[in-house]
Amino acid sequence: MIGGSIALALRARGAVVRGVSRSETTIARALELGAVERASTDLRGEVPEAGLIILAAPVRTSIALLGEIGAQARPGTVVTDVCSSKREVVEAMDALPEALGAVGGHPMAGKETAGIGAAQPDLFRDTTWVLSESTRTNPAARAVCETLVGLCGANALWVGAGEHDQAVAAISHLPLLTAAALVLAAEASGSELVWQLASSGFRDSTRLAAGNERMEADLLLTNRAQVAAAQRRFSQQLEALLQACKAGDDSELCGLLAKAARRRRALYGGNQPA
Amino acid sequence: MIGGSIALALRARGAVVRGVSRSETTIARALELGAVERASTDLRGEVPEAGLIILAAPVRTSIALLGEIGAQARPGTVVTDVCSSKREVVEAMDALPEALGAVGGHPMAGKETAGIGAAQPDLFRDTTWVLSESTRTNPAARAVCETLVGLCGANALWVGAGEHDQAVAAISHLPLLTAAALVLAAEASGSELVWQLASSGFRDSTRLAAGNERMEADLLLTNRAQVAAAQRRFSQQLEALLQACKAGDDSELCGLLAKAARRRRALYGGNQPA
Repeated sequence: MIGGSIALALRARGAVVRGVSRSETTIARALELGAVERASTDLRGEVPEAGLIILAAPVRTSIALLGEIGAQARPGTVVTDVCSSKREVVEAMDALPEALGAVGGHPMAGKETAGIGAAQPDLFRDTTWVLSESTRTNPAARAVCETLVGLCGANALWVGAGEHDQAVAAISHLPLLTAAALVLAAEASGSELVWQLASSGFRDSTRLAAGNERMEADLLLTNRAQVAAAQRRFSQQLEALLQACKAGDDSELCGLLAKAARRRRALYGGNQPA
Repeated sequence: MIGGSIALALRARGAVVRGVSRSETTIARALELGAVERASTDLRGEVPEAGLIILAAPVRTSIALLGEIGAQARPGTVVTDVCSSKREVVEAMDALPEALGAVGGHPMAGKETAGIGAAQPDLFRDTTWVLSESTRTNPAARAVCETLVGLCGANALWVGAGEHDQAVAAISHLPLLTAAALVLAAEASGSELVWQLASSGFRDSTRLAAGNERMEADLLLTNRAQVAAAQRRFSQQLEALLQACKAGDDSELCGLLAKAARRRRALYGGNQPA
């Protein structure tokens, strides 16, 4: 979905794009959609000809692919990725041959539907696209990746991999876990009524739980320390809310809810007349 | 927002609707929108003339208003409400004079914006509207409330107050607390980057946290036992996910995420190609 959306955006701006996938179905669909001019299941056939290689696979697959690419790419080739955790990816980029350029990347846009059929060329328009330096980030790699982000209509934001991973643990990785836990807890209640009554609030609260488990497990397993730290902060806040509720402490409960609502509205808007 | 939406829906179907609000601003806006023909801040002036009284206030305010209405309504008047918790409301209805009819109500539709300015007549179209019996639910009250639901375009579902409260704790009240805790935890991290990077996933995960704290505190405080039980089930599931993550147990983590995703997709759809 992400790889296909990038390909469609680049093609719309006149770039030459070729695709590599393990899946023949994905290749057929990519050609049909015009996302790529040529596609293949053979990484080795394409890598030596590429000027820019964009990895759009689960985190640990992307890390494994970096090893293969390091052995095959011609000098001067630039490599980037779109993974939701950055530290382990950037460390793998550090180990690439010095003749290659590499920049970690993470477009802050997505949806829960996977696969090239869900790709859309405007997915990144006006969104933030994080770029993270590796020791292989040379001026050429920097310029190529900023051009890539610009062609996709997004805004590049250079952020260190560790700082990125801390932030996305709070806004993406932990919310994915709480979404999954909300669904599993509703199921564990054994009530059929929960599914009958679930409406837009539950739908939005659990949207992140509908994604691809292979992608998700990879990003969680490559960002464990930050996810655990974010969970500790979350559990403290949830406990404070629950204690106020159990104690019937109206003013404390209202105060915490109002603080969250103010912060949420400052971020995304939404009116709240008295 | 809920009261105004009901009024607009009823007026569109030709019903005579009058409004009572403490707020002169709300009254002016309701008249301007055509949600009501006449409106007043004086409950006592309107109650004796009403055939059906719909309470659209926070839970504990609605309970207090039931006492006032019981003293003033003429025999045969039917009372209902739209509160998100039902047991305490229905118990207050049980205490109404025998000459009145009363049915607990909860339309399963909403949005985070409060106030009559956010009202929309089609808010309830094709949604579920829970009706809960009290000891004051006589055949006339039953018929009037089913007609109300039908005029709003919704589908009535009769559910006991206790069963309702258990289900909404899982799908609405706990998700509200986890949404607030996610926002408060992100703030507690002290990072400005979290707000820069927050995108659609965080927005949807925290939508419930943007509501009105007075409404929210009321529904939580009137459903404490079920909220606490839902939280225990949630924390067990979150802990299982985190343990699999910390232990690097890829197959356990993928299994739990896949189970949540299957359940979520069965409920709301969403494709997931391999």
